[in-house]
Amino acid sequence: MEELVLIGIGTGNPDHLTLQAIKAMRGAGLILIPEKGPDKSDLAGLRHAMLAEHAPDVPVMTFPMPKRDVSGGYLAGVDAWHDAIAAEWVAAVARAGGAVRRVALLVWGDPSLYDSTLRIASRLDPKPKVTVVPGVTSVQVLTAGHAIPVNEVGAPFTVTTGRQLRDHGWPAGVDTLAVMLDGECSFVTLPPQGVHIWWGAYVGMAEEVLAEGPLAEMALTIPPLREGLRAAHGWIMDIYILRRKG
Amino acid sequence: MEELVLIGIGTGNPDHLTLQAIKAMRGAGLILIPEKGPDKSDLAGLRHAMLAEHAPDVPVMTFPMPKRDVSGGYLAGVDAWHDAIAAEWVAAVARAGGAVRRVALLVWGDPSLYDSTLRIASRLDPKPKVTVVPGVTSVQVLTAGHAIPVNEVGAPFTVTTGRQLRDHGWPAGVDTLAVMLDGECSFVTLPPQGVHIWWGAYVGMAEEVLAEGPLAEMALTIPPLREGLRAAHGWIMDIYILRRKG
Repeated sequence: MEELVLIGIGTGNPDHLTLQAIKAMRGAGLILIPEKGPDKSDLAGLRHAMLAEHAPDVPVMTFPMPKRDVSGGYLAGVDAWHDAIAAEWVAAVARAGGAVRRVALLVWGDPSLYDSTLRIASRLDPKPKVTVVPGVTSVQVLTAGHAIPVNEVGAPFTVTTGRQLRDHGWPAGVDTLAVMLDGECSFVTLPPQGVHIWWGAYVGMAEEVLAEGPLAEMALTIPPLREGLRAAHGWIMDIYILRRKG
Repeated sequence: MEELVLIGIGTGNPDHLTLQAIKAMRGAGLILIPEKGPDKSDLAGLRHAMLAEHAPDVPVMTFPMPKRDVSGGYLAGVDAWHDAIAAEWVAAVARAGGAVRRVALLVWGDPSLYDSTLRIASRLDPKPKVTVVPGVTSVQVLTAGHAIPVNEVGAPFTVTTGRQLRDHGWPAGVDTLAVMLDGECSFVTLPPQGVHIWWGAYVGMAEEVLAEGPLAEMALTIPPLREGLRAAHGWIMDIYILRRKG
């Protein structure tokens, strides 16, 4: 493996693909795709469908996604998990015959944003050249869905996680937050006065649901809405932006 | 004008276009493009080239970009400027015959990120439905070029401007900053110890130049590099990420 190409594919809408992403798929000698897991989101299915449409002649090899075990500590567990995934990539390339110069992976959203693929790639030895193709992120699909700017004029904003919000509250110095990786509706822990929320689940997908309003109201309505959607679909991914009056 | 479609087109690489953007171009009844200005960046030329390739049959109307006059105060000047741009859009639609249901604009990067098009659109009266198509941003093209994640594992980051950095220094609570709209290499105002910078000019374009290293060194080398590029090309757009040891 001389080159590893990490291709951002957007958030589930096949039309999020850029022309650059399609060319990168077609230029790969092998594309690795994780096997469909037990969850119902069927992201593997989306990847196969994209390849069938845009790069039907490129060989594909699936690999099993190792289980993450953080019982011995979170960071050590993630570390070992990343090593195990890198080993699965190498094994998959070997199963495909081994003599592949350029291997590609299809990455949800953008490989730069709250994604571990770049970190996993850094475990490979020998190190291949790593090439990244940007993809549309869930933050952008959320702001597009609500037709809002993410920033106020000339003002900063912070992108953070549900855990950060729960552990540290609203960060100093910014009036806008984009919150990712939040499985617990952490916005309910904030004082809601003067805060507006723009929320979305399954953003960009056929299942997309958007909601927005004053946090004082939405902190009551989004959690049951989210729980209902999770129950109906068997899985959920959601994201939101919070803005308070500066 | 019943619907206004704001189409993110990425940062100058024609392959940044998403399939969704191409479909939105083709689905428009009229596309408005600002006239080529006196600068040398020729972003209008890029827009015309994209349309010639992907939507050659869709009518195009150019409009003059009003001059911004902030002599009477920055916010009031921007306010009047946005009104003037909205009026130019309306005049351009009228010149095109007026009876257009869906009008589109091609927006550099993503319409949500440090872009005024959504705010200008809100001046239109009567208000059309506004539809946003996400596009690849310069932040993403910068991280892709350097093959780095924008965030550290589970950690927040702040997107801000050169002016904010100069006026307020490093914001509290984050170890990673993405800095946009900085015409003055504002990173030179920071204490450089323990800070790394990933910088890029013309990211995504044929002219792209990347540089990265410890801020203590790069604060000396990037400003003259930037000045040389600006002189050679007649214009420059640059962006950077700063990360300090947490």
